[in-house]
Amino acid sequence: MNRSGVTHPQGFLAAGVACGLKRNGNRDLAVVVSETPAAIAGVFTTNVVKGHSLQWSRKNIAGGIGRAVAVNSGCANACLGPDGERDAERFAGMLASLAGCPVSQAFIGSTGVIGFPLDLQKIEHGLNEAFGQLSVDGGQAAAEAVMTTDTFAKQAQATFSLDGREVRIGGFAKGSGMIHPNMATMISVLTTDIAITAPLLDKALRAAVSKSYNRISVDGDTSVCDKVLVLANGKAENRLIETENEDFRQFVAKLTDVAVSLARMLARDGEGATKLLEFVVLGAPDPQTAHKMLEAICKSPLVKTAFFGEDANWGRILTAAGYSGASFDPDKIDIRLGDVTVCQNGTGLPFDETAALEVLRRDEVVITLDLKAGSITDRMWTCDFSCDYVKINGSYRS
Amino acid sequence: MNRSGVTHPQGFLAAGVACGLKRNGNRDLAVVVSETPAAIAGVFTTNVVKGHSLQWSRKNIAGGIGRAVAVNSGCANACLGPDGERDAERFAGMLASLAGCPVSQAFIGSTGVIGFPLDLQKIEHGLNEAFGQLSVDGGQAAAEAVMTTDTFAKQAQATFSLDGREVRIGGFAKGSGMIHPNMATMISVLTTDIAITAPLLDKALRAAVSKSYNRISVDGDTSVCDKVLVLANGKAENRLIETENEDFRQFVAKLTDVAVSLARMLARDGEGATKLLEFVVLGAPDPQTAHKMLEAICKSPLVKTAFFGEDANWGRILTAAGYSGASFDPDKIDIRLGDVTVCQNGTGLPFDETAALEVLRRDEVVITLDLKAGSITDRMWTCDFSCDYVKINGSYRS
Repeated sequence: MNRSGVTHPQGFLAAGVACGLKRNGNRDLAVVVSETPAAIAGVFTTNVVKGHSLQWSRKNIAGGIGRAVAVNSGCANACLGPDGERDAERFAGMLASLAGCPVSQAFIGSTGVIGFPLDLQKIEHGLNEAFGQLSVDGGQAAAEAVMTTDTFAKQAQATFSLDGREVRIGGFAKGSGMIHPNMATMISVLTTDIAITAPLLDKALRAAVSKSYNRISVDGDTSVCDKVLVLANGKAENRLIETENEDFRQFVAKLTDVAVSLARMLARDGEGATKLLEFVVLGAPDPQTAHKMLEAICKSPLVKTAFFGEDANWGRILTAAGYSGASFDPDKIDIRLGDVTVCQNGTGLPFDETAALEVLRRDEVVITLDLKAGSITDRMWTCDFSCDYVKINGSYRS
Repeated sequence: MNRSGVTHPQGFLAAGVACGLKRNGNRDLAVVVSETPAAIAGVFTTNVVKGHSLQWSRKNIAGGIGRAVAVNSGCANACLGPDGERDAERFAGMLASLAGCPVSQAFIGSTGVIGFPLDLQKIEHGLNEAFGQLSVDGGQAAAEAVMTTDTFAKQAQATFSLDGREVRIGGFAKGSGMIHPNMATMISVLTTDIAITAPLLDKALRAAVSKSYNRISVDGDTSVCDKVLVLANGKAENRLIETENEDFRQFVAKLTDVAVSLARMLARDGEGATKLLEFVVLGAPDPQTAHKMLEAICKSPLVKTAFFGEDANWGRILTAAGYSGASFDPDKIDIRLGDVTVCQNGTGLPFDETAALEVLRRDEVVITLDLKAGSITDRMWTCDFSCDYVKINGSYRS
């Protein structure tokens, strides 16, 4: 028995089945159920266009109680007008009836191609099958069922102590194109057995998302179906967290760790990616400066193709910083690839190309920009941009 | 004799030579000279990081008089600290001495790899050779000499009448990656024999750039060396334009036509591009809404790869519009590929895939978004995103 991901915490069951939405016969419907009603919070896409399944969940999140979550891949249920709304409602209704909860406690998500109707017969059949398979080791199957162009299922989990109780957090996420802040830019479901009120769970989630899912970029696109949900069912029986006390801070730190683990996996598994890139801005005068600069660099196709080519082309990084809108002194900036300084005070340094190449060949490359203008540090993850990105996106209708 | 491009107007000579900055032996130094001092205006990159050659020209543009322009490819002369500044000054000094003009009337530009010093011996040798070859049919050679990853030289020209005089405009431009507003996002030199004051030439250039070079995107990157210069030497002997009169408006329209022709060539010749995409936003309530939406769509790798794949994937276009920051009603928008309506009132229409494919296979595809919320129209050009973009940029150090 492997209680990984969403089934790592106490009191959660999950399943992932193939209901026929994906033509290749792979799993395409994930279900996560809490044995008891749980506090729930969510963060949703900032895109003006919003998928119908997402809109359903967004409307009900204010209630603060969740019992079941179902996410299908293979169809986004988006841009379908009133038909899409009706399908979302029916999807949630079926889920609620199987979970034995009010429909306002049933949350749904859909990811895949936009503009094609959701096949509710397949959903119904799949939900029935999934409820028959619900188990405490269903985390992996659920993580697989949400994959679209992902090359591997993404799960993370953590365990820690809070006033003598063991508390657990787990989750899954799917990417892998259309990943960019804001916001969540993917679909992720997190679970925890901590006891916490819904308003504080919401605060904790927003704090964690700001350091994780809002700090990754694959192609700068933000999907209409992106969301993160977190359910907390209280099975750990810790003192209920209802203020921003030390317990709360500890929970935020651990939730952030789990979310960062999943976010890094999303960046690493960017469509066609061959390596994970971590950009760090040091010495910024304020958070906005660091963030603007990181966003521009992590979105730049020229920067990302250079890393695919394993080319120590720091000029493109400086160029992207320069047009980012961040205000900085280009004559003070240092740039390092790993430990190799390639640019000092805005000027190219003669550097050891062999040492630079050794860094660039790594599976994970850390690139540091030091502005020497303050004490703020921020970081963001992205991936390189390969021929395969184009091949995948020139043929996959998303 | 072929008086094309910058040598189309009266009183301009040009040459393009190979001085050895490009390893492949192709032309890499362009010179344009006006027989008499000309009014000059320029628009320069908004990147915080600015190349040294560009900085030199930017500093002197306020003088309003230009006699000679030299642009090298193969080296950006950027991010080199005080050495780069000194090299720019010496480059301009050599040009001025050959042109027999004050150094403040000698304008230079450099494009190519960042962080490598400019070889002034080669520049000196090349300038001498170019001045020996200056001629009224040197426009083509000059256009070739500024090319970097461009696949063809880009020239345009126009002739029109103004108070009984024949007035001419011509120019060249180079692309082809790192093309994005703002601003000019490339290097272009325009010439005209119209008689106009420098302040009004500046106004005319800004108006033309806002409809042309600021309306194209290849990869969303903005280079540190981008600029457009225009010289007007008065040889047409029209009434001097010194107010925004009807003559001025006519000149702006013609200058815009030439700039749009060149800008479209830049988009068409985007690195790895197989087709030109023209996105049109109709029915916007204000210019900002239309512009924000166009910028996001034209930058989106997912949109651009879909067109490479000739896939009628309108969901990605609507997604990009949705995250653009533009405020619009997603339930009112229509999207057309050529004449094929694929989305009406934000909802997918069953459409004829064969007809859509016929549109997508064209060399130029027009995609229209109708917001039905006002009377503003705007348009922007970009290209598709192919495997070759990645290959070119994974290997070329720019």
